[in-house]
Amino acid sequence: MHAEIITIGDELLIGQVIDTNSAWIGEQLNLIGIKVKQITSISDDRLAILNTIEEAQQRADIILITGGLGPTKDDITKTTLCEYFKCAYRFDERVHQHLIKIFERFGRTLSDLNKKQAELPELCKTLFNANGTAPGMWFEKNGKVLVSMPGVPYEMKGIMMDEVIPKLQAHFNTQAIFHKTILTMGIGESYLSEIIAEWEDALPINIKLAYLPSPGYVRLRLSGFGNDFLELKSKVLSEVEKLKLLISNYIYGYDNETLPQLIHQELISRKKSISTAESCTGGSIAVHLIALSGSSSFFKGSIVAYSNEVKQKELGLKSETLESFGAVSQETVSEMIKGALKKFETDYAISVSGIAGPEGGTSEKPVGTVWIGVGDKQGNEIIKQYKIGNNRERNIQIAALYGLNLALKFIRGEFNLKS
Amino acid sequence: MHAEIITIGDELLIGQVIDTNSAWIGEQLNLIGIKVKQITSISDDRLAILNTIEEAQQRADIILITGGLGPTKDDITKTTLCEYFKCAYRFDERVHQHLIKIFERFGRTLSDLNKKQAELPELCKTLFNANGTAPGMWFEKNGKVLVSMPGVPYEMKGIMMDEVIPKLQAHFNTQAIFHKTILTMGIGESYLSEIIAEWEDALPINIKLAYLPSPGYVRLRLSGFGNDFLELKSKVLSEVEKLKLLISNYIYGYDNETLPQLIHQELISRKKSISTAESCTGGSIAVHLIALSGSSSFFKGSIVAYSNEVKQKELGLKSETLESFGAVSQETVSEMIKGALKKFETDYAISVSGIAGPEGGTSEKPVGTVWIGVGDKQGNEIIKQYKIGNNRERNIQIAALYGLNLALKFIRGEFNLKS
Repeated sequence: MHAEIITIGDELLIGQVIDTNSAWIGEQLNLIGIKVKQITSISDDRLAILNTIEEAQQRADIILITGGLGPTKDDITKTTLCEYFKCAYRFDERVHQHLIKIFERFGRTLSDLNKKQAELPELCKTLFNANGTAPGMWFEKNGKVLVSMPGVPYEMKGIMMDEVIPKLQAHFNTQAIFHKTILTMGIGESYLSEIIAEWEDALPINIKLAYLPSPGYVRLRLSGFGNDFLELKSKVLSEVEKLKLLISNYIYGYDNETLPQLIHQELISRKKSISTAESCTGGSIAVHLIALSGSSSFFKGSIVAYSNEVKQKELGLKSETLESFGAVSQETVSEMIKGALKKFETDYAISVSGIAGPEGGTSEKPVGTVWIGVGDKQGNEIIKQYKIGNNRERNIQIAALYGLNLALKFIRGEFNLKS
Repeated sequence: MHAEIITIGDELLIGQVIDTNSAWIGEQLNLIGIKVKQITSISDDRLAILNTIEEAQQRADIILITGGLGPTKDDITKTTLCEYFKCAYRFDERVHQHLIKIFERFGRTLSDLNKKQAELPELCKTLFNANGTAPGMWFEKNGKVLVSMPGVPYEMKGIMMDEVIPKLQAHFNTQAIFHKTILTMGIGESYLSEIIAEWEDALPINIKLAYLPSPGYVRLRLSGFGNDFLELKSKVLSEVEKLKLLISNYIYGYDNETLPQLIHQELISRKKSISTAESCTGGSIAVHLIALSGSSSFFKGSIVAYSNEVKQKELGLKSETLESFGAVSQETVSEMIKGALKKFETDYAISVSGIAGPEGGTSEKPVGTVWIGVGDKQGNEIIKQYKIGNNRERNIQIAALYGLNLALKFIRGEFNLKS
């Protein structure tokens, strides 16, 4: 089963907007076993739209189009599709009522221009757009499917999840698929692949493994393909169990979980609080910790101690420690943890000190050297040194993720500690 | 002059990587007056590459290709181009020496696989890749140009700026173009367009205006097209002068300048220091302030005071203030400024308190209400209230930008203050 994606809009071609829709759609189709052959971006131009659809029809079974469905004159996708499928318009009363409601919410009456959005080509099935005014359209012709959706990402995503994905699965009777993603941190892709090589080679033929590396972490996605969904799911999950035995130390979560979200859950369920004392990350860990609503129930505050004077005055860092070991050292990070725990009266504290670069490196402590620690008020601590890289922005970004990961493991009790 | 962009790579079609190259290339070509007609993403597949190039050749004068130039077997762009142009290989000694140097830097000797990257189709001119191992290639055929570049963004960007853009301008003898971008904040696109409508209508026919809105700010780009570059430049700049008279209050910078960079420059040239006291932004302003190397010379530290206890204990916020006005108030933000100035002993301090949402809003202080202030150690202060929006992530992000903008104007002395 092959699909093509066509994104329509002048703003894509002059670089004003990056086409993120195609990657997202590609990923969703991939998850249900449909392969994207080509992505094409064109302008709001009648001939370009007609030609591109005609060419795509020759290569693919499914064409997904986004963009060009606004109410203004420059948006011509709907009229062009009507021309392509040689059909008249029908008036969709459900869409009409939805439009009236949206306008009521903003205290306005529906304009004629917007009312026209309820006129749809009579050959299409309406794909209801809960998040916006432009409905999606589903066409079928010679066994092939053409779908048109608005270009606004969250409107398109709603239509895809609610309507297009289930309809595609039903229409093409695609085989059962089950995915499980394992989130790892603290190990590179190549070393990971060495450790799990034997397990990977022994995977059943209908279970595939994908490595999805990002800065600071690697996702492993297992995808099982077959006929019986429940059997498939249990087979994939039993492979995950085998994998866990090999790399449990590196796994921090599954599927769409994120570090801030996991820490959020752990702290709320344990009724514990946290603070941070940050140097080179400049507050990045704190920014992650407040990402989700409700964070005030566990996050108290943070001190960004960028200068040594602030580290001493605010966190009680001893001048002897600074003189003997320097600001980027295990000893300094340990005192920063204690300083934060005391200052913010929290159950846990994360602290970081490192050399983000590009200046400030030495042969002993090159750019990218970062010490990260987590401690609790009982005096337990775990402090680790990391060597990240040469890029300032990435050093800051990755050090923050490592700090969150260390904190998560510490809170979960995954380290052997004295008390 | 029409161009097409072809991006090659399986990772683009399964959604593992978002194609950011095309938007960037589209923007650069647009700046030199070349219009992109189509962007096509395909997999590393010989037939797909050959067909896509053939089709693009029929529509466009220029084809820019990225991706598929790695040394491994799955990268087949170079061999496929050799096949397309029906030519043999030549060995490029300059590229060879460059490869040897890159490998030396990592203490390795050049492998045979990588040495092959110095073999190029004899019909192409080499486009030197200073940032990586895969050189770019420039082909000409029947007056048309085809360029192949690596897919790694910073390698592609280096080749585009150093080689492709100047070569395209020379080859197609494009007309002179001059752009000037004016960066504004604190005013929406539609209100801006009302204020400048008369000026905009009176622009010379060869000077175009583009509105480029982003969350929190709007860029205005003036582009002049003509024959004489110097005359053009002076015409565009004189229009900018007229524009400044209308919206000087909202302009914070020009072209590629950023708020963190501008604050960085102002503080370093004035030998002044800064700190922050942040509540709802959770340290986001501090993270902006450390984005550039050298920030330790002016940035001392930050306190993220997420709970009221921390605001009181660490910033000296009076309980009367909290009781009478609440945490999200002008009075609280004023005390937070004074607390930060004292704590970090800096010349300036920025402070923020607001309701990021989605919970915590009231009818009097709805979600998105944010108080932001800047002060100096002489006791001058400017404090403003903003109503941003409903989205937590955007509220945090935009509040941080507004804080930086307020600080920049304050440091530049753009407010009438008592002392």
